[in-house]
Amino acid sequence: MALPAPLRGVVPPVCTPLDSEGGIDRASLARLVEHLIRGGVHGLFALGSTGEVVYLTDAQRRTVLDTVVTAAAGRVPVLAGVLDTTTPRVLEHARVAAEAGVDALVATAPFYTRTHPLEIAAHFRRIRSECGLPLFAYDIPVSVGTKLSTDLVYALALDGILAGVKDSSGDEGGLRRLITALGGADRARGGAPGFSVLTGGELTVDAALLAGADGVVPGLGNVDPDAYVRLHTAARGGDWSLASAEQERLVSLFAIADVGPEDRMGRSSSALGGFKAALRLLGVIEEQATAFPQIPLDAAAVERVAELLADAGLGTAR
Amino acid sequence: MALPAPLRGVVPPVCTPLDSEGGIDRASLARLVEHLIRGGVHGLFALGSTGEVVYLTDAQRRTVLDTVVTAAAGRVPVLAGVLDTTTPRVLEHARVAAEAGVDALVATAPFYTRTHPLEIAAHFRRIRSECGLPLFAYDIPVSVGTKLSTDLVYALALDGILAGVKDSSGDEGGLRRLITALGGADRARGGAPGFSVLTGGELTVDAALLAGADGVVPGLGNVDPDAYVRLHTAARGGDWSLASAEQERLVSLFAIADVGPEDRMGRSSSALGGFKAALRLLGVIEEQATAFPQIPLDAAAVERVAELLADAGLGTAR
Amino acid sequence: MALPAPLRGVVPPVCTPLDSEGGIDRASLARLVEHLIRGGVHGLFALGSTGEVVYLTDAQRRTVLDTVVTAAAGRVPVLAGVLDTTTPRVLEHARVAAEAGVDALVATAPFYTRTHPLEIAAHFRRIRSECGLPLFAYDIPVSVGTKLSTDLVYALALDGILAGVKDSSGDEGGLRRLITALGGADRARGGAPGFSVLTGGELTVDAALLAGADGVVPGLGNVDPDAYVRLHTAARGGDWSLASAEQERLVSLFAIADVGPEDRMGRSSSALGGFKAALRLLGVIEEQATAFPQIPLDAAAVERVAELLADAGLGTAR
Amino acid sequence: MALPAPLRGVVPPVCTPLDSEGGIDRASLARLVEHLIRGGVHGLFALGSTGEVVYLTDAQRRTVLDTVVTAAAGRVPVLAGVLDTTTPRVLEHARVAAEAGVDALVATAPFYTRTHPLEIAAHFRRIRSECGLPLFAYDIPVSVGTKLSTDLVYALALDGILAGVKDSSGDEGGLRRLITALGGADRARGGAPGFSVLTGGELTVDAALLAGADGVVPGLGNVDPDAYVRLHTAARGGDWSLASAEQERLVSLFAIADVGPEDRMGRSSSALGGFKAALRLLGVIEEQATAFPQIPLDAAAVERVAELLADAGLGTAR
Repeated sequence: MALPAPLRGVVPPVCTPLDSEGGIDRASLARLVEHLIRGGVHGLFALGSTGEVVYLTDAQRRTVLDTVVTAAAGRVPVLAGVLDTTTPRVLEHARVAAEAGVDALVATAPFYTRTHPLEIAAHFRRIRSECGLPLFAYDIPVSVGTKLSTDLVYALALDGILAGVKDSSGDEGGLRRLITALGGADRARGGAPGFSVLTGGELTVDAALLAGADGVVPGLGNVDPDAYVRLHTAARGGDWSLASAEQERLVSLFAIADVGPEDRMGRSSSALGGFKAALRLLGVIEEQATAFPQIPLDAAAVERVAELLADAGLGTAR
Repeated sequence: MALPAPLRGVVPPVCTPLDSEGGIDRASLARLVEHLIRGGVHGLFALGSTGEVVYLTDAQRRTVLDTVVTAAAGRVPVLAGVLDTTTPRVLEHARVAAEAGVDALVATAPFYTRTHPLEIAAHFRRIRSECGLPLFAYDIPVSVGTKLSTDLVYALALDGILAGVKDSSGDEGGLRRLITALGGADRARGGAPGFSVLTGGELTVDAALLAGADGVVPGLGNVDPDAYVRLHTAARGGDWSLASAEQERLVSLFAIADVGPEDRMGRSSSALGGFKAALRLLGVIEEQATAFPQIPLDAAAVERVAELLADAGLGTAR
Repeated sequence: MALPAPLRGVVPPVCTPLDSEGGIDRASLARLVEHLIRGGVHGLFALGSTGEVVYLTDAQRRTVLDTVVTAAAGRVPVLAGVLDTTTPRVLEHARVAAEAGVDALVATAPFYTRTHPLEIAAHFRRIRSECGLPLFAYDIPVSVGTKLSTDLVYALALDGILAGVKDSSGDEGGLRRLITALGGADRARGGAPGFSVLTGGELTVDAALLAGADGVVPGLGNVDPDAYVRLHTAARGGDWSLASAEQERLVSLFAIADVGPEDRMGRSSSALGGFKAALRLLGVIEEQATAFPQIPLDAAAVERVAELLADAGLGTAR
Repeated sequence: MALPAPLRGVVPPVCTPLDSEGGIDRASLARLVEHLIRGGVHGLFALGSTGEVVYLTDAQRRTVLDTVVTAAAGRVPVLAGVLDTTTPRVLEHARVAAEAGVDALVATAPFYTRTHPLEIAAHFRRIRSECGLPLFAYDIPVSVGTKLSTDLVYALALDGILAGVKDSSGDEGGLRRLITALGGADRARGGAPGFSVLTGGELTVDAALLAGADGVVPGLGNVDPDAYVRLHTAARGGDWSLASAEQERLVSLFAIADVGPEDRMGRSSSALGGFKAALRLLGVIEEQATAFPQIPLDAAAVERVAELLADAGLGTAR
């Protein structure tokens, strides 16, 4: 399907359900897609950080894209992460993603290597020119090691290289500067009217929408897509009190990302483990396994997830 | 005067005007206080980072406090920064500030030394117990090197050690978690009803207020206090569109903090130089000098400040 | 061939010569291997950071390994980098490397994702158990984002999981602690007598050998392998004055890694560009191209490389 | 006394013994100075990080300098740390230190504030021109947040602004580049023959001396000055095997800096607590107290210090 320009709304980074051997659980993934679309989301971001993309082999990545595209069945656009260290490797993923029929690509700056803004710009330009599909920049300095500057994103937006940005930098001030540079509340009059500003933060969605962001890519949206859709709808309708109240409830629910003890597992294991445990408890996916070498949540942590779901009024199936 | 609990509204970190020899320009400082109070601010934060506190000798710090307290004349509360590396040194500043008649103290975690959360907690407890005055924690990891965790601030709030926090961490998600932990929108029902959450960010004030923050400590508020007061008033009245529009205008004006070229001066020199140049152009202070060894803005940068003031509709006196 | 235990001596991270289209230049790579072996090196590390491994597609990686193994022809052991974000992806590279006939594997901790020491340990254990080949840990926090702790490396050494470590952390104090823990100067009596400590630093090789390191993996060793071999030989013979003098000469030569201006290219582009320009000038490889999107050295920078080679008494062929 | 140019040898950063109320224990401090001079050290660095300078009030700093200068009685030169956030505050400390009769000053770059290399250079130039005393730059990025570049230190050395550098950056490669730039092994022929390169690392002293450093400023030298003097003497005599063996013994002894559990105290508390506990056990100082809010070592940690002293053959007095 054609990607709306700008893309607006709730676009969850889809979790990748695994079986106990670490293989892709296609049936669970298809159910998750259905869960999200029924929740009213406006798009799907497959193979993001939340989708454990960097833990999946190339073959598994392809399986994920095929499954999501098939399950989405054109009802909402599918964005595909093509994350890898540098341009030559990203281009290979991009070709596979295009073949799988996704509607847009999402790429980070190069990582592992020490890079320069001029090299980052060349990286995005090459991906865009070689692949044709709309391209989103994924700004996630905690993983990549470099922050995409406002100036760089703005320049690539004006040049039509980027269709949007997914900002997981946590730098809300920088996001506000970008939006203001793009024309602010009256974006249609700016130089890149189709450019989409998406925030990756779960906790500041109301704020980002008030600032003029177009949408949100919340990992927690896997668990409770309806709530993010309600938040978005309230914000679009100008009911900021309701938007803020929905956000506050989601801040409380987000505690499921921290149930894993910090002295025994990484923050990735805890957050993804929490989301997947919740999805299993809600009956959406079969297993809560995260990819190796992430450490699994123990029973106490899963119990805590169940409590948090109950506190949030989310009935569990198990 | 008694400090409101919670302290709410606009509390600018007052710039410290200097003469050409680096001495405190008391007359300009008094005029700046008048400028801010006439702008409608709800408090004054003297000797913050924006006040160049770490560039001032102890005698100069004392002069600043005396001048601000006298000029404020009890019309708004005065908070005093007591920033120094560790508790013993902070306590000396705190005693001087109490003698000067300030209404509250603002302290960071220890810096220069590698510290532990338990030590940071002991630091704030000792300052509070020895000084009696209400105490705000100043969370500014870019300067201090450590982030105050939500858990730590929350515990110190519940125990009555802290009267509030000034959050200059840029971590809006963390701020949201703190506010939610404190009771969210209905803070009066939480465990620390008098605790004040202030954001130090110039660019995300509407967002912070929507999230439930009590107030804002904007460096840019030196230049345009009226605008931050308008923003705050709109937010308190639930007019979020207006709040957001005011914020957007201030995001544009904030470009005065970046007029100094990055290859020739530090970000502190550029921001403080920009604020002071604006204040001089507006006729509030006499000289735009920043403290040594900060590099002064050149004529082109000052010209740019003048343009930005004009763009923002701020008539200049010179 | 069987890998010596411990591996000792000079083991350069082999550059990957590219043609002007970004393809592997196999003939140049074979000549480079010959250049190194004739220089007296004790092993070859293919597909390291210096080998631009993160810029190469999987097919190109395979080509590099085949070429190096063939060219080495069993004269020195070949270590292969199997760098990728997480265990499942590393394992795929490891299988390919084993098929190509390399003698040992080199892997980093997981990157891009936020990981935990327990997960890092599981990662190395799995690679070792699945692949059989001797495994070296590659400690390069500037790229990976986490430092391998002395305790972790020591534990994995004692357990026989790791055959050695390649330390590019720059933390010479930490390296010294590790060596002391392993038994210090009299390593044979420690708990892991076959464990090899290799430093990745070009500039502190004499110091590392004095501290008890077994060998060195110097990027600059591509350009002047003879000098590193002389340094190593002097150190083994106890002639520390000569070792230090050789080191000093190499510190001067290392300026070829900084010829690219910092405001126009990343540090990777500059260093790898400098090494490749030198190899071209020395007549070892055909083209000096670095992989996309690295910015090429300009003519002035290449001229500077030529001067530095001349200063070091390295005659150029072109 | 006149400061040797270059200053060479072992110059410990003198611990500051405290009584149980946090006051300076002058008698213990004088005994410590005697302990160090009898150990053969070549100078004393008072008010360094190891001296807990950032925990001491201005009056306490003055007391420390008076005590050390009196106790040293001209037998070895006394260097005084004048650490504070910015130039105006450092200059005040510098005047006090000059009055106390110290032989040289030691200053860091500005901290807390975000600064620029041009501002750092101006900072050192101003201190030098206003104070007259020889000035050492103290490079300690873990505390200050910025690394002094080789180029900056080299330029200030050539201009005669700096008498030396105390490098606690841990960047041994950078130190080697600086030494090479200064003329390497044959420093007398370089452009700054009186410039002194001192390493602040306890664990790499043999390596630094091999590289051409002039001396060492080891915190652990408070505990075992004789060993660092033996190491230095061996190195000066070209007996690198002996130097390395002494270093290895000191690496083992340095474990006293890590006896405090990381989950209960900062690294500063652990290291300084370990040094002070050792000095008390050796009968040099009265109390092992560290300054508030550092957390004291518990009995188990002190027991471990005693064991490590015994392992190192250092008889304890208590």
